[in-house]
Amino acid sequence: MIKAGIIGSTGYAGGELVRILTGHKEAEIKWYGSRSYIDQNYADVYRNLFQIVDAKCMDDNMDALADQVDVIFTATPQGLCASLINEEILSKTKVIDLSADFRIKDVSVYEEWYKIEHKSPQFIEEAVYGLCEINREKIKNARLVANPGCYTTCSILTAYPLAKEGLIDMNTLIIDAKSGTSGAGRGAKVANLYCEVNENIKAYAVGSHRHTPEIEEQLGYAANETVKLSFTPHLVPMNRGILVTEYASLKKEVTKAEIREIYETYYGKEPFIRILDDGVCPETKWVEGSNYADIGFQIDPRTNRIILMGAIDNLVKGAAGQAVQNMNLLFGYKEQEGLELIPMFP
Amino acid sequence: MIKAGIIGSTGYAGGELVRILTGHKEAEIKWYGSRSYIDQNYADVYRNLFQIVDAKCMDDNMDALADQVDVIFTATPQGLCASLINEEILSKTKVIDLSADFRIKDVSVYEEWYKIEHKSPQFIEEAVYGLCEINREKIKNARLVANPGCYTTCSILTAYPLAKEGLIDMNTLIIDAKSGTSGAGRGAKVANLYCEVNENIKAYAVGSHRHTPEIEEQLGYAANETVKLSFTPHLVPMNRGILVTEYASLKKEVTKAEIREIYETYYGKEPFIRILDDGVCPETKWVEGSNYADIGFQIDPRTNRIILMGAIDNLVKGAAGQAVQNMNLLFGYKEQEGLELIPMFP
Amino acid sequence: MIKAGIIGSTGYAGGELVRILTGHKEAEIKWYGSRSYIDQNYADVYRNLFQIVDAKCMDDNMDALADQVDVIFTATPQGLCASLINEEILSKTKVIDLSADFRIKDVSVYEEWYKIEHKSPQFIEEAVYGLCEINREKIKNARLVANPGCYTTCSILTAYPLAKEGLIDMNTLIIDAKSGTSGAGRGAKVANLYCEVNENIKAYAVGSHRHTPEIEEQLGYAANETVKLSFTPHLVPMNRGILVTEYASLKKEVTKAEIREIYETYYGKEPFIRILDDGVCPETKWVEGSNYADIGFQIDPRTNRIILMGAIDNLVKGAAGQAVQNMNLLFGYKEQEGLELIPMFP
Amino acid sequence: MIKAGIIGSTGYAGGELVRILTGHKEAEIKWYGSRSYIDQNYADVYRNLFQIVDAKCMDDNMDALADQVDVIFTATPQGLCASLINEEILSKTKVIDLSADFRIKDVSVYEEWYKIEHKSPQFIEEAVYGLCEINREKIKNARLVANPGCYTTCSILTAYPLAKEGLIDMNTLIIDAKSGTSGAGRGAKVANLYCEVNENIKAYAVGSHRHTPEIEEQLGYAANETVKLSFTPHLVPMNRGILVTEYASLKKEVTKAEIREIYETYYGKEPFIRILDDGVCPETKWVEGSNYADIGFQIDPRTNRIILMGAIDNLVKGAAGQAVQNMNLLFGYKEQEGLELIPMFP
Repeated sequence: MIKAGIIGSTGYAGGELVRILTGHKEAEIKWYGSRSYIDQNYADVYRNLFQIVDAKCMDDNMDALADQVDVIFTATPQGLCASLINEEILSKTKVIDLSADFRIKDVSVYEEWYKIEHKSPQFIEEAVYGLCEINREKIKNARLVANPGCYTTCSILTAYPLAKEGLIDMNTLIIDAKSGTSGAGRGAKVANLYCEVNENIKAYAVGSHRHTPEIEEQLGYAANETVKLSFTPHLVPMNRGILVTEYASLKKEVTKAEIREIYETYYGKEPFIRILDDGVCPETKWVEGSNYADIGFQIDPRTNRIILMGAIDNLVKGAAGQAVQNMNLLFGYKEQEGLELIPMFP
Repeated sequence: MIKAGIIGSTGYAGGELVRILTGHKEAEIKWYGSRSYIDQNYADVYRNLFQIVDAKCMDDNMDALADQVDVIFTATPQGLCASLINEEILSKTKVIDLSADFRIKDVSVYEEWYKIEHKSPQFIEEAVYGLCEINREKIKNARLVANPGCYTTCSILTAYPLAKEGLIDMNTLIIDAKSGTSGAGRGAKVANLYCEVNENIKAYAVGSHRHTPEIEEQLGYAANETVKLSFTPHLVPMNRGILVTEYASLKKEVTKAEIREIYETYYGKEPFIRILDDGVCPETKWVEGSNYADIGFQIDPRTNRIILMGAIDNLVKGAAGQAVQNMNLLFGYKEQEGLELIPMFP
Repeated sequence: MIKAGIIGSTGYAGGELVRILTGHKEAEIKWYGSRSYIDQNYADVYRNLFQIVDAKCMDDNMDALADQVDVIFTATPQGLCASLINEEILSKTKVIDLSADFRIKDVSVYEEWYKIEHKSPQFIEEAVYGLCEINREKIKNARLVANPGCYTTCSILTAYPLAKEGLIDMNTLIIDAKSGTSGAGRGAKVANLYCEVNENIKAYAVGSHRHTPEIEEQLGYAANETVKLSFTPHLVPMNRGILVTEYASLKKEVTKAEIREIYETYYGKEPFIRILDDGVCPETKWVEGSNYADIGFQIDPRTNRIILMGAIDNLVKGAAGQAVQNMNLLFGYKEQEGLELIPMFP
Repeated sequence: MIKAGIIGSTGYAGGELVRILTGHKEAEIKWYGSRSYIDQNYADVYRNLFQIVDAKCMDDNMDALADQVDVIFTATPQGLCASLINEEILSKTKVIDLSADFRIKDVSVYEEWYKIEHKSPQFIEEAVYGLCEINREKIKNARLVANPGCYTTCSILTAYPLAKEGLIDMNTLIIDAKSGTSGAGRGAKVANLYCEVNENIKAYAVGSHRHTPEIEEQLGYAANETVKLSFTPHLVPMNRGILVTEYASLKKEVTKAEIREIYETYYGKEPFIRILDDGVCPETKWVEGSNYADIGFQIDPRTNRIILMGAIDNLVKGAAGQAVQNMNLLFGYKEQEGLELIPMFP
């Protein structure tokens, strides 16, 4: 039985970690960290867990926590994990960081996009980027896993096989992403009020969203070249879900069957990736509550472009589900353990 | 391993049955009945089940089905189960009817409210009303279970202990109910289009909703008197969830603690009923996707009334979840088997 | 041309006042008061008004304002108008208070329900309750108009003719109300975030909502007796709209035609009240963006009750529209001036 | 006073035409055509218009209609206007066609994308493409106006100045569009049910949406070259609104100020186009219910691309509002007449 602690357990990603780990037969949560709700009953914060979780919120003391658990999840804003972590913690326990602190290998890129100083650059090198489908083997032996961002998970998985196979011109890659509102977090801001988000759609952080360099770095490894792409996130009036629509020019003429074969080669045996049938476009509702990433594509011979589409639940495959998938890898459990969540419709 | 067949598997309640039974370790679905999608892949109808369910939709042949399965769920419009059922079927297999056909003991009341002739009145007497928390022992030995309606489940469970204890004046009982739109079914009607329901709330079937006599009958048994109550359903712009707000005059002065004690006596050990803390009002979101019924109350000394509130997921405790709970009882499994679904938030 | 000033112009009710007054041919806004956004462009706060409103937000100095305008609207939290108002202001300008400060004649009732001390009880007596359809003549000569609450407007208008005619037993009156989320205001609270409200419905302030005594007082005047009623508000996942469902026992047998005739007598010539056809239930979407109150009813002979239903747009007839209707009365304009807003569907 | 007839008045675009024309001081509707609701009260179909519109739905007899009105709006599916129109009708009355029948000059392109035979190709040449901001002078003298599509209006207006000025490489233009659900029409289809659309986002008609050739033709005129672009529409869970996000490579280095100056030159005096401030992204909610098109942009020097964003209300500027704007031009009224609709927020 894995003993787990969560720092930041009362944000939306933290709450989803609690939901998933509570249903995980091989793990138990020992620490519900929360700066805002300390000493309150966890189930008073998330009443869906009333009579399911019986525990109080605790502080964010990562050092104390490291003595008590096998794995620490940090579902906290950027900078916090980097400021708390140290060699002693890592010598005692595994750390799965859901923030961006250890996702980007070049510390100057991190500091430029996140506008903060990195407090623990010494751990960046050893941290493993926790996109399980791509870094599975490396993850198994990691001490520190950098759990990918929600937009990035969806963006990378959708394009990865074609980038790796050199089929698309990476300089033409454009990612237009749409996210449900839980991605904006549980902070009390006017911009995230019901009446501001409902019946509305907008782009934001155009040309400057912090997930951009993370996507570029990972797809750059795949394509073996430096990648600069356009990434535009949009806020959609729904609770959960990310949809990415990606556009790229094809380097050569290919058929639907060839593209499909590539995806099958890369993902055919992946438990959490579903390559949709020809002509079927992913919908976020079909993956809601689950760890699936659904992928579809359309070749447009008129423009010599391919349009790729991917859908995930931002809180599951885009955050907590992937974190648990990483935990399963770290501790040698079946990757699907606790993650056989059937999407809920409607 | 229970072999199950579903007639009407492609409606919303049917789809939820598939979701729940697919995750049930002791059951497997052998028959995905669907009049509309016959011979199509089930996962083409509900793509959330892509690569999870690999089966084609079949016809509604209940006689053929009875030879192949241990239990038949009928998630069909009123009248269909009554027109298909017969003694031979019941001698071979259990039937759990999610429609209203066998819920009301007085066939004339059924025919008056449903405006159709009952085709199998001979089975009404033996049918057991499948509200597990109240009829648990009877259900275990039934051949035919009348699975309660969504509004009725929530309405009855919320008021039952006080009706049974004679604490409220049944003639004053008013039930104001609010339902998500999946309760309206998956039929293609203008009234249920996104743009008609969204940003809108309305009452409907005022004074004439068909769940009224069902609630009256069951609460009448509890109170041991004839009950006539007001029941008003409302359509709410959300997918799932029923909230009932019930008003009744108190027959005598009671304290919060006394009311709570009664609820604890009746429901304290129930796995799927949660009595909320003092002053906490149920919210449909806290039970979404789960089989829970959340109950809260407020005494109003100014008016000598008690206001009772109950919340369920209409597709789970209000339909498919309760049907599976009944199945577990029928076949001697633990009542929670396959139903330990943690509510999803947000 | 009426010169108007708004204190609290950047809340949702204030924003709606700006929208309506901007389209009003006989009024112009001279003062956009806002504590939170002082010195910012008003159109940066509400970008729907970009290139329509060209003004900066100003402070809440009601004394200074009184020298410059003909009418002051206070769209502010309870207590603020009472703390700012004085005889000098009222001698110079009309005041239409959208808060509760002058709605309740008995100051002890106000203080009990609002839990604050009333700072200007000397003006309560002269303040006129601004429900135009009922107090039209008194409003015309008022200096200080207490603009009714959103729930109260809808609740009172719906029941008023039957209360006045003595047809219903006032002791049995129960009001179950449902409101869109703009009624909760624009404050940054976790409870009003998109993800908390969306896909959810709940009751709140059960037995203790502050609009209760206001409804009781006004319906008490109508029925000429002391009224104690049950009022339960619910939060609905939509931006705008209030629906009330009211239940009362009939004192004697009446027909649909008789009830209709009473409503026609009271409201037949009212420009903003629509008595719906027999069997038609009001829907909030049909009044969205307009100053209409839609009313429907159903007699239930089984229970000897009548069920009344009313729908308004909480920000228009429930706040800003009614305030402008009051302004029109105060200044001798046609009551519909600036309020001929056609509801928007879908 | 312009006498207007509407064929297809009970679809969503037709309903919006009725809403706008009802508030138009210089027009009156003489004919509410509707195949589905013939002889029913119009206000029974759209109850928001109860006691505002007092008329019955009539048939689709365009010949009879031409004798009675000055202008006919056809808000009907593709093919219908082309099958009804003839020289006699056009000699008697103006026709504003909201369908695609006369938008595309090359009949073979029309027939290829719409998969139907064009029944009146002889009128294509004289039809004027009714995008007022671009074809204003030609529209004034037209007999037959082809009112642009919703996606196309937004897509073209957003890119037009840069296409015309030759600043962007037209071969790189990608338009990722997001639409509210009213764009899908009022037909009773499962795919448009509340529960199917709510909490969901998807792309559809990827590479094959019929608005593609219309955008290509118009932007081709602007750029004076043949244009092939990628256009991907998405269905968003909201009633109204279209947002386009457009990506194109810049042909040369430009500054924000230069881009802004170009937009100001083209649109600075346009009553319905608002160029948003630097760094402000359009939101559909800010134009809801109005005839505005809001435009914003961001230069991304990292990728040498410009990202353009545009927002309209699909039923107003994308359909009925633009049709009335065309009517105003045809009959010599002020272009804003009846269209000074202030966007509603929230």
